[in-house]
Amino acid sequence: MKRSLESLAREVAGQVKGDGSVEISGLAGIEGATEGDITFVSDERFLPLLKGTRASAAIVSHEIPDVSIPLLMTPNPLLAMAKILALFTQRPYAPEGVSERAWVSPSAQVSADATIHPFVAIGDHAQIGARVTIHAGATIGPHVTIGDDTIIHPHVTIYARCVLGKRVIVHAGTVIGADGFGFVKDGEVNVRIPQVGIVEIEDDVEIGANCCLDRATFGKTLIKRGVKIDNLVQVAHNVQIGEYSILVAQVGISGSTKLGKNVTLAGQVGLVDHITIGDNVMVGAQSGITKDVPPNQIVLGSPPLPHRQFLRVAAVWSKLPELKKELDRLIKRVEALEKKAEVERP
Amino acid sequence: MKRSLESLAREVAGQVKGDGSVEISGLAGIEGATEGDITFVSDERFLPLLKGTRASAAIVSHEIPDVSIPLLMTPNPLLAMAKILALFTQRPYAPEGVSERAWVSPSAQVSADATIHPFVAIGDHAQIGARVTIHAGATIGPHVTIGDDTIIHPHVTIYARCVLGKRVIVHAGTVIGADGFGFVKDGEVNVRIPQVGIVEIEDDVEIGANCCLDRATFGKTLIKRGVKIDNLVQVAHNVQIGEYSILVAQVGISGSTKLGKNVTLAGQVGLVDHITIGDNVMVGAQSGITKDVPPNQIVLGSPPLPHRQFLRVAAVWSKLPELKKELDRLIKRVEALEKKAEVERP
Amino acid sequence: MKRSLESLAREVAGQVKGDGSVEISGLAGIEGATEGDITFVSDERFLPLLKGTRASAAIVSHEIPDVSIPLLMTPNPLLAMAKILALFTQRPYAPEGVSERAWVSPSAQVSADATIHPFVAIGDHAQIGARVTIHAGATIGPHVTIGDDTIIHPHVTIYARCVLGKRVIVHAGTVIGADGFGFVKDGEVNVRIPQVGIVEIEDDVEIGANCCLDRATFGKTLIKRGVKIDNLVQVAHNVQIGEYSILVAQVGISGSTKLGKNVTLAGQVGLVDHITIGDNVMVGAQSGITKDVPPNQIVLGSPPLPHRQFLRVAAVWSKLPELKKELDRLIKRVEALEKKAEVERP
Repeated sequence: MKRSLESLAREVAGQVKGDGSVEISGLAGIEGATEGDITFVSDERFLPLLKGTRASAAIVSHEIPDVSIPLLMTPNPLLAMAKILALFTQRPYAPEGVSERAWVSPSAQVSADATIHPFVAIGDHAQIGARVTIHAGATIGPHVTIGDDTIIHPHVTIYARCVLGKRVIVHAGTVIGADGFGFVKDGEVNVRIPQVGIVEIEDDVEIGANCCLDRATFGKTLIKRGVKIDNLVQVAHNVQIGEYSILVAQVGISGSTKLGKNVTLAGQVGLVDHITIGDNVMVGAQSGITKDVPPNQIVLGSPPLPHRQFLRVAAVWSKLPELKKELDRLIKRVEALEKKAEVERP
Repeated sequence: MKRSLESLAREVAGQVKGDGSVEISGLAGIEGATEGDITFVSDERFLPLLKGTRASAAIVSHEIPDVSIPLLMTPNPLLAMAKILALFTQRPYAPEGVSERAWVSPSAQVSADATIHPFVAIGDHAQIGARVTIHAGATIGPHVTIGDDTIIHPHVTIYARCVLGKRVIVHAGTVIGADGFGFVKDGEVNVRIPQVGIVEIEDDVEIGANCCLDRATFGKTLIKRGVKIDNLVQVAHNVQIGEYSILVAQVGISGSTKLGKNVTLAGQVGLVDHITIGDNVMVGAQSGITKDVPPNQIVLGSPPLPHRQFLRVAAVWSKLPELKKELDRLIKRVEALEKKAEVERP
Repeated sequence: MKRSLESLAREVAGQVKGDGSVEISGLAGIEGATEGDITFVSDERFLPLLKGTRASAAIVSHEIPDVSIPLLMTPNPLLAMAKILALFTQRPYAPEGVSERAWVSPSAQVSADATIHPFVAIGDHAQIGARVTIHAGATIGPHVTIGDDTIIHPHVTIYARCVLGKRVIVHAGTVIGADGFGFVKDGEVNVRIPQVGIVEIEDDVEIGANCCLDRATFGKTLIKRGVKIDNLVQVAHNVQIGEYSILVAQVGISGSTKLGKNVTLAGQVGLVDHITIGDNVMVGAQSGITKDVPPNQIVLGSPPLPHRQFLRVAAVWSKLPELKKELDRLIKRVEALEKKAEVERP
């Protein structure tokens, strides 16, 4: 497929500078691009590389002097890049039907235009929407509902009664709806608390590989619209994640904790149970959050501090031995003064 | 199924206050309960909600004035709740036999009343006990032994020769018996140390989703009776976990480390190799344990401190910049004193 | 199989002290060894145990007085142990062909002497090399290439177009080539950046269970020759890992970060994106690395410090409350001096 630069600019509401009729057949990074490609500069640091690129055009945020190739100017080059790359790489859905090597319960309802790969098991009364793709070896439990255009990658497990919305993507090995971790001591023995709730995942959520989203004790664990989850993330029972939030790899969220809208948790962050994180909060990598965080904050550390405070604390922390020495020297100086002044220690 | 409140009270050795003949058909949280449900209050904070509940009865730890519904009184309402919820939700085991879509080695011994779902592979000489359920896509290696009434969820892998006890539950995607991580440098090259041991899991252990329990170099990695493991937990080769211990999500335990009885490791805790954690130790979330911990301690942090000390350290830590300023001011004051007193710095 | 001690010594270029004709049939730990076994002492601490062993010979680094059994002396007993244990336990590869229960695309090329277990799915145009073993339930995407003698364990997923070298081992549940985590905000909505690159894994790499290695946005995520990766490790898009590096369990590496040769990351370490770690760097457990680390360093902590400095900082850190008290006392003493000297505070 080829597109003129002009037509690409229209797709992303951008401006062309230079020859808009140049034909573009793909998108690549500055250094990997070849003739026919459009490239992009999303960070000023990489602008100098633009002069050496072999790309036929470039997406930039502002006019660049001394660049010979045509430019597509737009306030957010990365966003334009994402949209144009999708244009060149997304293929229309083509249904392949149900593999003879899959197992589908007679009571399940699978849309006629779904694609079910080999070794997929679909349980009793499950409902699989239109244009859904379920890749090899995924297991869909009884009474599960999967919305239209959702993609389930290999070896995903969805336990009984969980609900997935439309255009959801779940990467390989992720487990949705295993039992929440609930036990109560009876003497030394751990007695299990049955977990009778579900997991509900709203539209346009994407979940990485080998994540675990546990079913609720009662009610539901809820992942709201547009949330994006990276790999190896743990979401415990009864957690609620607000719209468009982002959880980076290896995050762990304990039971019943609630995240607002547009929250970002960086890699390896841990949250204790039963706390509330406000809208638009950003939590720095590896932080351990032990209490509520009000909206619109950037926090960092364990216990968490506001971002700037954390940096100041960390600066002193890394020089603690020097600080200790200074204090010890000062104590000696005060002793000398006390001796001279014949003051007794208070 | 319906049960009188009185009969439920007998099951948990509790006392009824009010009409013990009321019929109960289910159990739910205070806010989600409807007529016919029994609810529970396991935390005094939630007592006020009891007045608004639509439940027909409630499990509480002591008499509550001004509550119109009948009460079931017991010293541990959460434990009673767990037992009663199990009564209402556990179905008796009904064997479904071996799916035609499963693959069972001719030399494997599968109990006549086991349930083997599609796409399960059972290797040579494996032994599967009575009333065992193996869900879709699980792989049981050669010479594996699985005890009676154990439940293996989808896509679990159990490598050769590992041994699982009775009433064990393993959630989806967990890997039992992969090679321990043992290498030795030969110049720059990493030479693998063959891992010829096994994993043994005793009775009544539950393991969450996507965990990894590695086989021993020699001998066995051992998970003792009644241990409960959450999701995404790493247990390295030759680790030993004592009876009734609890490992919360994303914990990592390095090689040959030994945990006593009834240890609790909170989320994302890491333990180095070859250390011993005593009975009844509790380790706070994200701690990094680098040496032995004696029994009956609560520790926290990296390096770990006793719980109270950690809190005091963390309080000073978060105000380090202010402490530094105080020290700098004090240095100036001492300089002024020295000048006045004509004392030289010691 | 039996081997004389003398012939074993030749295999590892070691020296025999004592009767070199003694027949050895296996290798075991000091305490588990029985007659016919050779054992080993890789740590001086365990030397005293040697007197009680029932082994018929022992691998040691130097002559041991008062030990009655023959000794195999070599500078690196652990390395010799690894090689001798492999001798006794490795079986020659015996091809088993393609299971009737596997699904292989007609356009895939599978070597005639490969072993493909039940419920394996192999996609269009995939190429499977000589003597490759693919265990039950693994999924190999379209256009994937797998080199000779590689072993893929159960439930591994390899996404389209990824490339694996020779003698690679991938343990159960690991996911290679899922989409990198790339999104760009369009208002509040997260717009996905298509991930069109691949993962390439060079020869002699071993990867543990339930890891995630994401495909590159463009180009490739690259794991170089001889790298060893433990369980539950996250490798993000466009990461590059240098030759013979070691990643311990639960490590997470963010996008585009580059590791040199022979780097060791201990358990639960996190690395931010777009940094470079030099050759031979060692990073202590749970550290959070936020900037480049020059070669030949040992670093520890968050932010990371040189190893010795970290230990000194941690020592002061754990006594911060005492330091604070000392400072407060000193302030009082200075106040008393100021009063006596009639000095005003500067």
